Amino acid sequence: MTQLSADIQRILKIFEEQIPFNNLLDLKIEKLDLQGASMRVDMRDELVGNFMQGTLHGGVTAAILDVTGGLTAFMGLLEKMGHLSDQEKMERLSKFGTIDLRIDYLRPGRGTYFVSKGSILRTGNKVAVTRMELHNDKKHLIATGTGSYLSV
Amino acid sequence: MTQLSADIQRILKIFEEQIPFNNLLDLKIEKLDLQGASMRVDMRDELVGNFMQGTLHGGVTAAILDVTGGLTAFMGLLEKMGHLSDQEKMERLSKFGTIDLRIDYLRPGRGTYFVSKGSILRTGNKVAVTRMELHNDKKHLIATGTGSYLSV
Amino acid sequence: MTQLSADIQRILKIFEEQIPFNNLLDLKIEKLDLQGASMRVDMRDELVGNFMQGTLHGGVTAAILDVTGGLTAFMGLLEKMGHLSDQEKMERLSKFGTIDLRIDYLRPGRGTYFVSKGSILRTGNKVAVTRMELHNDKKHLIATGTGSYLSV
Amino acid sequence: MTQLSADIQRILKIFEEQIPFNNLLDLKIEKLDLQGASMRVDMRDELVGNFMQGTLHGGVTAAILDVTGGLTAFMGLLEKMGHLSDQEKMERLSKFGTIDLRIDYLRPGRGTYFVSKGSILRTGNKVAVTRMELHNDKKHLIATGTGSYLSV
Repeated sequence: MTQLSADIQRILKIFEEQIPFNNLLDLKIEKLDLQGASMRVDMRDELVGNFMQGTLHGGVTAAILDVTGGLTAFMGLLEKMGHLSDQEKMERLSKFGTIDLRIDYLRPGRGTYFVSKGSILRTGNKVAVTRMELHNDKKHLIATGTGSYLSV
Repeated sequence: MTQLSADIQRILKIFEEQIPFNNLLDLKIEKLDLQGASMRVDMRDELVGNFMQGTLHGGVTAAILDVTGGLTAFMGLLEKMGHLSDQEKMERLSKFGTIDLRIDYLRPGRGTYFVSKGSILRTGNKVAVTRMELHNDKKHLIATGTGSYLSV
Repeated sequence: MTQLSADIQRILKIFEEQIPFNNLLDLKIEKLDLQGASMRVDMRDELVGNFMQGTLHGGVTAAILDVTGGLTAFMGLLEKMGHLSDQEKMERLSKFGTIDLRIDYLRPGRGTYFVSKGSILRTGNKVAVTRMELHNDKKHLIATGTGSYLSV
Repeated sequence: MTQLSADIQRILKIFEEQIPFNNLLDLKIEKLDLQGASMRVDMRDELVGNFMQGTLHGGVTAAILDVTGGLTAFMGLLEKMGHLSDQEKMERLSKFGTIDLRIDYLRPGRGTYFVSKGSILRTGNKVAVTRMELHNDKKHLIATGTGSYLSV
């Protein structure tokens, strides 16, 4: 296993297992590489926002797009961290955070599962900008987002 | 009890009890009147995002600010619905939704509880715009947001 | 000339000739069809923001992306207006407006000219959402944006 | 004259006289201190966007709010630069830039003049976040904005 794939395995484990709210939502990473991240959440009763329509809560949409954007931005950073120790990488991750986030709710969140996808618009030394999308199981585009992330 | 306060009681009950994801987060309405809404969430392990710092997950921040903005926008609408039946008001509520949302994460979400506050920037016939804030128990401003909401 | 191409010709003329601030910036429409709009602005001294670097002012970037998004959103509407008279279409256009706009400044605005491109994310009866990009003459992505537009 | 007021005078001169596009718009600084910036633009034919209604172009609104936010954010930084030489301060200013911007268009831009006001939401070592407002001569709130700014 290369250093990079070891790093990715570690990050994957952290996001899925050690971040309590990701656990509560039951977010799963579908794909994680230097080009970006893709995540999945299965619909269940607890995630409903509009109980008359049975659609996904806008807060779940925002949460999954924020996590997807953050992971995508962090992968961009990881490329520049080749010389750092594992300890130093973890410290960077612990200080990494969202500056701001925009979510556009395009269609009602109907579906049996939802898949997000993040891509990098800009990776700087301090600030990364990413674009995110959320599709349902029928490949309908439910929401898009843009996020700015800061690494200290 | 006036018609308005009956409406507010009904909406309060819906948001706290019938929206499953609000229940999962355990969001409580602190204040609800024609000027806006205020909500509270108590910190607990499941809501942590950064496990190294023990801070609130950005998705929880986004969710509470979205719900607060939506409630605030809906209160603005309610004023114009005096002539509608309860049934018609509920139909309007069921079709009410977020167009888009911006969240600015200003400080790490440290605290024992968090309180949001929404205020109206614009109420139109179709689109309402609100501004939201999230403070922690020490009154530190953790995040701000702006949301646009559509009523059909 | 079909009705649609006549409508497009008329809108093109309005945006380039009758909107004073578009004139001041010297915005030119490069492409305009039902899929979206593309515009161009040539760099000149008056449009500089950072005089030490000689780069495009962020306000020019915001202006061209807003106009591009608005035109793109209006083209989406035009499809649904087949049955309206020219007079009615003009009335709709006069009441059409931006709800909100997000601009991400990705790279310094260096270049001899800049080209924008808009695409539709959602066209509703009342609200349209568009995504916009700005590239320089070397095809570098300078800025992206997302806009929400309201038609009354 | 204190060092701080000398710095402010210099920045004021730069923004009003040396930034070509601010000149084209004829933006004037009304107020500039460590709490934020306020700017004014007088309405004139060239700044019209909607020629049927004679209202301010959304791009002018975005430009004035971006400049106001940037100035406000830079004043926040200036406080931390007491130990730097004039040369170093100018270098910082030349590299200072907008990360992203959100504008909410609340009411049609009718008026004989418009006044903006910026306030600081967060000043970090690298990223500052500001909130901006634009009022017309009748004190009606025309637009609000939020901007994130990066200092290298």
